Amino acid sequence: MDPRVHEHAEILVDWSARVEPGDNVLVSVAEDAHDLAVAVAEALGERGANLVATYDSSELSRAYLRAHDDAFEKNPAHELALIENADVYLRLGGGRNTAASVDVPGERRGAYRRSRTAIREARMNTDWVSTIHPTRSLAQQAGMSYEAYRDFVYKAILRDWESLANEMAQLKTILDKGSEAHIKKTETDLWFDISDRTAVNSAASVDYDSHNLPSGEVFTAPADVEGTVLFDVPMTVDGTRIRDVRLTFESGEVVDYAAEQGEQVIREILETDAGAKRLGELGVGMNRGIDRITDNILFDEKMGETVHLAVGRAYDACLPAGETGNQSAVHTDLITDMSSESTLSVDGEAIQRNGTFRWEDGFDDEL
Amino acid sequence: MDPRVHEHAEILVDWSARVEPGDNVLVSVAEDAHDLAVAVAEALGERGANLVATYDSSELSRAYLRAHDDAFEKNPAHELALIENADVYLRLGGGRNTAASVDVPGERRGAYRRSRTAIREARMNTDWVSTIHPTRSLAQQAGMSYEAYRDFVYKAILRDWESLANEMAQLKTILDKGSEAHIKKTETDLWFDISDRTAVNSAASVDYDSHNLPSGEVFTAPADVEGTVLFDVPMTVDGTRIRDVRLTFESGEVVDYAAEQGEQVIREILETDAGAKRLGELGVGMNRGIDRITDNILFDEKMGETVHLAVGRAYDACLPAGETGNQSAVHTDLITDMSSESTLSVDGEAIQRNGTFRWEDGFDDEL
Repeated sequence: MDPRVHEHAEILVDWSARVEPGDNVLVSVAEDAHDLAVAVAEALGERGANLVATYDSSELSRAYLRAHDDAFEKNPAHELALIENADVYLRLGGGRNTAASVDVPGERRGAYRRSRTAIREARMNTDWVSTIHPTRSLAQQAGMSYEAYRDFVYKAILRDWESLANEMAQLKTILDKGSEAHIKKTETDLWFDISDRTAVNSAASVDYDSHNLPSGEVFTAPADVEGTVLFDVPMTVDGTRIRDVRLTFESGEVVDYAAEQGEQVIREILETDAGAKRLGELGVGMNRGIDRITDNILFDEKMGETVHLAVGRAYDACLPAGETGNQSAVHTDLITDMSSESTLSVDGEAIQRNGTFRWEDGFDDEL
Repeated sequence: MDPRVHEHAEILVDWSARVEPGDNVLVSVAEDAHDLAVAVAEALGERGANLVATYDSSELSRAYLRAHDDAFEKNPAHELALIENADVYLRLGGGRNTAASVDVPGERRGAYRRSRTAIREARMNTDWVSTIHPTRSLAQQAGMSYEAYRDFVYKAILRDWESLANEMAQLKTILDKGSEAHIKKTETDLWFDISDRTAVNSAASVDYDSHNLPSGEVFTAPADVEGTVLFDVPMTVDGTRIRDVRLTFESGEVVDYAAEQGEQVIREILETDAGAKRLGELGVGMNRGIDRITDNILFDEKMGETVHLAVGRAYDACLPAGETGNQSAVHTDLITDMSSESTLSVDGEAIQRNGTFRWEDGFDDEL
């Protein structure tokens, strides 16, 4: 086995999930994540944790959902009991076909999702971490050879996370103290009210309220947003390719939108509910191990020298105590490239220019 | 997908497990049982049952067990809660390597097994059924091509079970009424006391106290046994090939044993504990869909025109109310061919001669 699979498993178990002896660990294994699951099982055995593995197959889900009617029992007792008694939930993604369940009707999928609110909440109450094993299917989605894709994935995951956490802490401090953030680049002039917000230093560990491996972003939930933005990083949303999305915000709400490609998908998302037109997240990608777009949001949104904004639901962790953030059934991230002719400022001070942060060599403070 | 996979899934869900709408079903999926799992998921969706799939990988278990020490936590709460809240447990066997975990030390395996008594009992309290998906690994174990092996497996499984159950009921009636069973063939002259015993008509359905698919045997737990027996059907026990085992019983206990091959394994089994030298089961294979030995006890012991005896633990279902059968940590089946120059009799009356039962065409009542 590629020794990097074992390194991945150890980072996942130790740095990300902080597994302790006696922890009840639930490992969800995608169709093609077998090798990573074996390495994770070994790491869990070494640490004296208790292991249950579930099989997370898109083909199995598709068959089940298509055969079922829309009347799903709410939170089946065996699944709920399993998760409520788990301390740690590790999701090992990596299927054989990213389009495996596209022909499940949206209404069926929605009915199933609504029947599982308590199961989802119980999962969020564990020390959960989501990661992926590099598979041929994900390489294909990225438009890469299998070997090159594995190199890419491990470069993103096998990092010195403590060091990146320390670097990201500098941006978190600036955002926490700041009142107004500003992004300026081609066709983009966007102002965010971030007063009283707390940024999350998303360092790929439950100890940092961070639940993705890889991670490497600092994000917050702006109170208000004004201006226009161009998302020039292409991506796939709900199976549809989208490119060059433009949004205009007034008083925090999208008042105009357009896209070179996939405008219909953007329209459907924005019209989901009232909260879907408002901003849920301002995130700054800081993982320089991720140096290209691979059409997988788990990676793309953490890419160094990018910023992403999400319309829809906000994370409560960013809000003042007692305040509820933007509510919505959606949370869709859109990405803009900050590597050239771009500035991110807080309270009038440039924090990042042309992809370089002010604490890095080569930062140019002149406008 | 081979349409027989869907037929298999439907027999498993409907005939074997008797799944009802709203049942909480736990499906254990072996490494290479994916296709059967998809078909089972579809059948469960159609019937409105609730599905959790676990991943039963020998490689994963091996990695976990080898890395762990011998101090396993007893009955981890998440796994126990999952099974205690399940109505139905379907085990879909079919791995990629039947030797995948042979290098887990026996003591480690034993310590793990002893830590899971309550989990095992909870599983036995569900409507559980064990079956296999035909894999290349099992074909190899059987010494068969993949295509021929699949034909073999489906011939054994896709049967008219109701009709076989009715046929087997005739033997059950004879055994239930009878006091003494007798097997006579080459180097075999064995007498069983079966008075007050209740035979199980093992028709591959929980409604018949039968938990294997395929099944197709009638078995009971003799009170006493005297005489000698030759097991001329070769098999693999604990990874070792055994051939031509001979046992001699006096007052129900093995007093002499020998084997042409694998005698050491037989010795270890018989010396496990006091109950390992006594008989736990007399079973009559009646599934004529199984027409050859494939080195898989799930199939071999049900083969038509064979009888199997198990040393070790007896099934309580066969015993008078309140009586406890033979106790042992082992239950090892050994098989003898009854297809020629053999007679099975009950209370002096021939029931089967040269493989043919008395209710079948061609039965010869003359000695």
